[in-house]
Parts: sequence; C-alpha cells; structure tokens
Amino acid sequence: MKSNTSICIGFLVYPNFTQLDLTGPFEVFSRIPDAKVHLIWKKTEPVRSDKGMSLLATVDYAHCPDLDLICIPGGPGQVELMQDHETLAFIRDKAQRANWVTSVCTGSLLLGAAGLLQGYRATCHWNSMDMLAILGAKPVAERVVMDRNRITGAGVTSGIDFGLYVVAMLFGEDLAQQIQLQMEYDPAPPFDAGSTKTASIHIMDEVQHQMSSLQQRRRAMTQLAATQLDEVDVEL
Amino acid sequence: MKSNTSICIGFLVYPNFTQLDLTGPFEVFSRIPDAKVHLIWKKTEPVRSDKGMSLLATVDYAHCPDLDLICIPGGPGQVELMQDHETLAFIRDKAQRANWVTSVCTGSLLLGAAGLLQGYRATCHWNSMDMLAILGAKPVAERVVMDRNRITGAGVTSGIDFGLYVVAMLFGEDLAQQIQLQMEYDPAPPFDAGSTKTASIHIMDEVQHQMSSLQQRRRAMTQLAATQLDEVDVEL
Repeated sequence: MKSNTSICIGFLVYPNFTQLDLTGPFEVFSRIPDAKVHLIWKKTEPVRSDKGMSLLATVDYAHCPDLDLICIPGGPGQVELMQDHETLAFIRDKAQRANWVTSVCTGSLLLGAAGLLQGYRATCHWNSMDMLAILGAKPVAERVVMDRNRITGAGVTSGIDFGLYVVAMLFGEDLAQQIQLQMEYDPAPPFDAGSTKTASIHIMDEVQHQMSSLQQRRRAMTQLAATQLDEVDVEL
Repeated sequence: MKSNTSICIGFLVYPNFTQLDLTGPFEVFSRIPDAKVHLIWKKTEPVRSDKGMSLLATVDYAHCPDLDLICIPGGPGQVELMQDHETLAFIRDKAQRANWVTSVCTGSLLLGAAGLLQGYRATCHWNSMDMLAILGAKPVAERVVMDRNRITGAGVTSGIDFGLYVVAMLFGEDLAQQIQLQMEYDPAPPFDAGSTKTASIHIMDEVQHQMSSLQQRRRAMTQLAATQLDEVDVEL
C-alpha cells in the first residue's frame, strides 16, 4: 500500500465508447485525495459516446504523461479501434510503463488486441467473454479479475466495483469505504436481471438479438486482431 | 405504460455537478429505444464536474423543448444554483409541463429551492437528507422515492436504481431488465460501507468531517432558499 494517495491515472476515451464504463470508475478514482485523472484521446476535443454524451478529452497521445494506471473502457467503438494501430501502439507503450493495466467491459478486447493479455486471466462483458480467448487470454466470468498487474472488470456497471477494488488494494480499505459511503454505493437493483446466471431466458435472448450484428463484427475484428498478434514484439 | 418507447428526457448539467449522479441514469435512459436525452445548461458548452470531467451540454435554456421527464443531478455546484433565479425559473417552468419531475442526490435540494417539493415525500444524499424538510419536503431515507409525479433518488450511485425503476414504471419490466442485463448491473460492492446503516462509525465520521464546510454552506443556502419560497407562485 502506498503511504500517500498520489497517483496518475489515465482513461482512454474514443468515439462510440460506453460512457458508464468510464464514468463509474472515474467517479471512484477522482475521489482519491491526490489523484490526477486524465481522459486521453488523439485530440483534446469532445468525444461522443455510443449514446450521444460528449466528454472532453483532457490530454492527447503526444502529451500524455506516463501513468501509474491505465484504464480502457469498452463500447461499440472499441471494435474499430482494434485496427487502429496508432492507438494500439499508444496503449502498448503506456501499459509497458504503467504499474497497473486495466479495463472495463469490452475494453479488455482492446488490451488483448494490443497484445497485453496473452496468458493472463481476464474478464469482459458477458456477451463477449469468449472472444478474450481468441486473443490469448484466459476468460474468467467474474466481476473483477486480477492477474499480476492486469485488472479487468466485467460489463459496464462492474467498473464501480472494479474502482473500489483498486482503491482498496492500493490505498487501503478505509479510503475505499469512505468513497463507497460518499457515493452511497449500497445498490438495490429493482430486478435480479443483471447477470446471465439470474436473468430470464427471454430477456437474455432479446439482448443477444439486439447485439447480434455488433457481436458479429466484434468477433470478426477480434479474429483479425489475433492474426496480427505475432507481429507484436512486446515485453510482457 | 406507454405503448411505444418514445420519450423526451432532459438532465440539467451545471458547473461542479457530480457526474455519476447524471451519467448513471443517462446510461439507463439512453438505452430506451426511442428516447431523446438532452443535457441542458445556459450555453451549449463543456460543463465541468466537481472532479474535473467536462460534459458537453447539448441544448441551452432558450432552445430546450418541453420534456416528458426532467432530472436534476446533485453535487457541490447545486449549492450556488439555489440562488440562481434564472435556473430556478427554468426548472420550475419545465417541471410544470413535464410528466415526471425527478432528481438524484442533492439535486432534490434544487427541486426544493424551486418550490417543487413542498408537501412531497422525497429523498437526497444521506448527509443532506434533513435539509429537504427546510424546503417543505418530507424526507424519506430510501434509495428511490416516488410521490405522485416526483421521483427522487438518494446519493450518487442510486441514480442507476432510480433509472431502472423509472424505465420499469413507464415501459415495463421487460425493457428495464433488458437494460439491466445490457449494463451487467449485478453489483458486488467489495465492502458493506455504502449506507449509514452499515458503514463503520469511523468511516462515517471521516466522510462527514471531509464534507463539513460544504455542508455548512449547503445548509445556509438551503435556509436562504426556504425564506424565498413564499415568493414562488407555482401551481403544484
């Protein structure tokens, strides 16, 4: 555990990301007393989420400092980024110098495409979990998965649990619990439908149907990314 | 329940708001198939949260359409807004024409300052709950509180529960459960510290100590707003 709470954190932000993948853990991390939290994109401009919320990137790739922790959120835009070699190189570079390499939701597929999950246990949104294996990772259906310095969160809202887990690990349970109480994180979902273990079959079928064309494209791009992994020469 | 899923929703956004108060329910509402979700401020410019995340407002007061549902998030900046009579008048005007008047966290104090909670049961962040009474509301320590067409959520993360509650009520449990599964909202907080009922005394003391100067200012501004409520002539 660090004796002070100084930490430099960077979230990648990109067109068509899922904003709650990022805004959940951002809310947690930004409450670490001395945290500096960056939102990173190619340009310091507003970046539009898949649902039309635009967040202002605070630093571009060229000016991004070395990070203690890098976090990659997921979302439909992640699919295109798997062939954006500038972004993959940026992630790889920052990850190699970071203490912690992390993601939420399908952000782990971007870590995987950057060659950063080969041989690592990792998680992802439930509907894309099996794609991790295509990239050489070992899929684990848990809400937060840590393997050495890789910490991955499952779908969307798991980013809040992930954030608290990381704060507790780095700065102790007292700070994590303070942040949890500040955020009144005493969740009471009105239904028990948040997991494939508990959701009705017809709810799950409907969601998979809605996502099917995106998932088809995601799988194809994941397979393409996997064929390029041999070309990545990275010290893991 | 509406037979289609068309709905026009507006979130107020303002300097020093708490972003997760808004981004949680935004993620839920923006997944309603035909929802139009606005982020409203005086100007369509980036608006900075209390923790330094800037969101782009999508419509200004003058161009904001009538809303089916208005939602006011909380945050430190809410304190100053309680004396911003342009904003209070805007909230009042839109609320009077909306079907649903809602808030998350200390956003309910803004509804109260606008004269919209007199005689209504409502909730707020746990540490400001009692201030609701100063504005004529009846404080209820629950995560989501509905009284006629006012729906208020408790602190920060309760906005996700609030969002799912609203979707279920307006569009049925099937859609709410689909959204819950899409968002993998199967929360697993690493600690049981998210409520004053379960947090340790020393955690609660520490959080209250951290918030004490803000709370002092919040209380003074709430009392000032209460003295001005008689001047508000609004059909509730």
